Amino acid sequence: MKNKAITDRNEDFAKWYTDVVKAAKLAEYSNVKGCIVFEPNGYALWEKMQSVLDKMFKQTGHQNVYMPLFIPESLLKKEGELIEGFAPECAWVTQGGKNNLEERMAVRPTSETLFSDYYSLKVKSYRDLPKLYNQWCNVVRWEKETRPFLRTREFLWQEGHTIHETEKEAIEETLRMLNIYKKFFEEYLAIPVITGRKTEKEKFAGAEFTYTVEALMYNGVALQSGTSHYFGQKFSKAYDIKFLNRNNEWEYVYQTSWGVTTRMIGGLIMVHSDENGLVLPPKIAPRQVVIVPIGNDENILNFANEILNKLNDADITAFIDNSEKSPGFKFAEYEVNGIPVRIEIGKRDYDNGIITFARRDTREKITEDINCDVVKVVKDLLNDIQNNLYNRALARRNELTYECKDLKEIEKIMNSKPGFVKAMWCGEEECELKMKEIRGTKSRCILENEKPIDDKCVVCGKPAKHLVVWGIQY
Amino acid sequence: MKNKAITDRNEDFAKWYTDVVKAAKLAEYSNVKGCIVFEPNGYALWEKMQSVLDKMFKQTGHQNVYMPLFIPESLLKKEGELIEGFAPECAWVTQGGKNNLEERMAVRPTSETLFSDYYSLKVKSYRDLPKLYNQWCNVVRWEKETRPFLRTREFLWQEGHTIHETEKEAIEETLRMLNIYKKFFEEYLAIPVITGRKTEKEKFAGAEFTYTVEALMYNGVALQSGTSHYFGQKFSKAYDIKFLNRNNEWEYVYQTSWGVTTRMIGGLIMVHSDENGLVLPPKIAPRQVVIVPIGNDENILNFANEILNKLNDADITAFIDNSEKSPGFKFAEYEVNGIPVRIEIGKRDYDNGIITFARRDTREKITEDINCDVVKVVKDLLNDIQNNLYNRALARRNELTYECKDLKEIEKIMNSKPGFVKAMWCGEEECELKMKEIRGTKSRCILENEKPIDDKCVVCGKPAKHLVVWGIQY
Repeated sequence: MKNKAITDRNEDFAKWYTDVVKAAKLAEYSNVKGCIVFEPNGYALWEKMQSVLDKMFKQTGHQNVYMPLFIPESLLKKEGELIEGFAPECAWVTQGGKNNLEERMAVRPTSETLFSDYYSLKVKSYRDLPKLYNQWCNVVRWEKETRPFLRTREFLWQEGHTIHETEKEAIEETLRMLNIYKKFFEEYLAIPVITGRKTEKEKFAGAEFTYTVEALMYNGVALQSGTSHYFGQKFSKAYDIKFLNRNNEWEYVYQTSWGVTTRMIGGLIMVHSDENGLVLPPKIAPRQVVIVPIGNDENILNFANEILNKLNDADITAFIDNSEKSPGFKFAEYEVNGIPVRIEIGKRDYDNGIITFARRDTREKITEDINCDVVKVVKDLLNDIQNNLYNRALARRNELTYECKDLKEIEKIMNSKPGFVKAMWCGEEECELKMKEIRGTKSRCILENEKPIDDKCVVCGKPAKHLVVWGIQY
Repeated sequence: MKNKAITDRNEDFAKWYTDVVKAAKLAEYSNVKGCIVFEPNGYALWEKMQSVLDKMFKQTGHQNVYMPLFIPESLLKKEGELIEGFAPECAWVTQGGKNNLEERMAVRPTSETLFSDYYSLKVKSYRDLPKLYNQWCNVVRWEKETRPFLRTREFLWQEGHTIHETEKEAIEETLRMLNIYKKFFEEYLAIPVITGRKTEKEKFAGAEFTYTVEALMYNGVALQSGTSHYFGQKFSKAYDIKFLNRNNEWEYVYQTSWGVTTRMIGGLIMVHSDENGLVLPPKIAPRQVVIVPIGNDENILNFANEILNKLNDADITAFIDNSEKSPGFKFAEYEVNGIPVRIEIGKRDYDNGIITFARRDTREKITEDINCDVVKVVKDLLNDIQNNLYNRALARRNELTYECKDLKEIEKIMNSKPGFVKAMWCGEEECELKMKEIRGTKSRCILENEKPIDDKCVVCGKPAKHLVVWGIQY
């Protein structure tokens, strides 16, 4: 039994993806080019991601703030590399009311400039440091090609912007947030990730260095899923964020920024979902259990409500569907929506003292005695699903991770069964550009803590400097 | 003892207001004209408001979604009254990347058009109704004069947009949400409000009618604090939102929208705060209790931590400040920040078996035995503060609410001790414009359920149609 509204993912992955987005009612195209409507199911996922991450941020001492949507061009231009990187993809406001503005304003593509401007007014002494601020907001980048969640002109994200007294503290912060992202991806989204440093060519405009979280999709394509940047004093010098240090001397602050976006929803789909629609890890599913009583028997309805209360009391988000739709319709609907566990209570089963649990990840059905400890059964199932999804994704990623010492081999892999390719690199941009000729393969990140697999660059054969993960990207 | 950074509110209310905003670190002016930076204390207030309201919305069946930030001009223009109302205050994006756009786009001033466009694609049958959607987002209106929280070019809000099968259901929804706002203002913000219908002149562009929540500030100026609109079929006809009804005939949906904004933060300040800074009702205070151990005695620190744990376990948000700053500095700081209760633990008091509770609303100090039930004492205090703030605000509003049958009297009131003036009105716009000549006095709302106080219009003397509340407004 396959959901007919959904294309086979092995046949046409791109079509499969948009089919799942539509069938699970996550998002809809809008009449605003390149922008999507987040429908209730899609937005609920984002809210859940926000609530988990926000808690992690606050537990590590961060505070939320909100900066303006607009950036006057002169303010944006103060840091040269940033404007160079972002100017080609800014949306510009040039009119306010009936008047043309004296100076055009960018709709924020990212807010380093606004945070820096604010910090420059507020910070006077080392006693004012660190400032650990974050904001949840919308940003706009004028992309040419768009795809729901993965790349849209407007998207939602969080951007942390912190300033510190010392380089050491700022670098620690950069890595702390990278690790929080890694933890979030692995423990909540059940997505194994590789973390490492971006090459000079791939780093964020204006950063000293960029750390990245890279995930591999079902089809072997890589998704840059989160980044954490160390700015050193680049912005603090451009925006004049100075403080009197402990030696009573003026010094520029050391700065970081880090962000993840609604793109994570796209990654979640492309790692776990299948031909029957969305599959969600229980720890991130807005609704974890649906209870479907079959028929209108009052005893069954009462029993269903009893289960509901038990589950809700145990902090499991469950709901009942006793609408008039057919059981088959409901089963398909909640499968497509990715509800991790479905509890079916049929008349005959009920009379025989049995209830059925259907798990979304494997689509197995398990029957249990009607007097079983429902909360325990469900908790175990949810745990099991969470682990199974992670392990399945990890096994697939391992299968699609290659070590290569030969360019021809990389070419062969990327043209047949692409994935993460680990290979040595000399550090020259020329070799990165050569690699790009292979179906757009790019460096994902430098693995700083892994042993070299060879002593020469896989492209030019000169002495290698770094072990790099390469991949085709979204 | 008065906080020197804060102007006397009876001397210069406007200055007092911005002093409080700054001293309590709620917001800062930004280098983007008319936009503010929400600092951690200000944004935490908004988060708290969001969490309470969002729960109320979800409990009444609403779901969150997210629509695009931009509205193409042609889409905005479909409903004539709306564009007429909002065109003069839209910010327009005319360039994307390096290109001029073929059609300029407004940064959303409100999203009726986008919701309507979306609904027109999605709704086919009465079975698809109602749709009860809400979004939390930023909006932009190109105001000329701005003031932190009260009127800014960009602000944050929620906008609910619902569609229904029948007029009756839609009107019920309009009133349901009005009452949710009233409940929120009175029970959480401790602000008594008047609710009623706006006059034709003052209603929302495109609405059949608008209900409003009106609050009175300390200085007797009115603040429109939330609105709930009934659109009938105006938008559904303009945007073609049709459904097959139960008689299998095509019918246009009945629509509502409703919203509250970060302006509420301004209202909160102007109702409760005083010469020592912010005063917050405990139910909306992001931090309810600060514990200040005085000195470095280990027993005292342990005791402070013991209290902290007890309070946090009882779901009271408490924190300890054992930094090196002086007690006096800390007391002033937490007063200015509006922390409802401060617990002081001094060495001598501790040795004498006493702890001190200071309440922010009255600035009274209460001593209790060191072995008292701290949770109970604090809970009672928080309750008492919440009630006291409401009653104080209510008493002030009652004192500043007048019934008038004579225009001269209204003039006298508005020029000496302004407030809410109840007076009869014939229903003609001409009389509203006459009233406006008195220091800009405007109708706040029509009181539909109160008894008339006279039979003739207070302005023209012709037969009166409505009892109206009038006031000077922000």
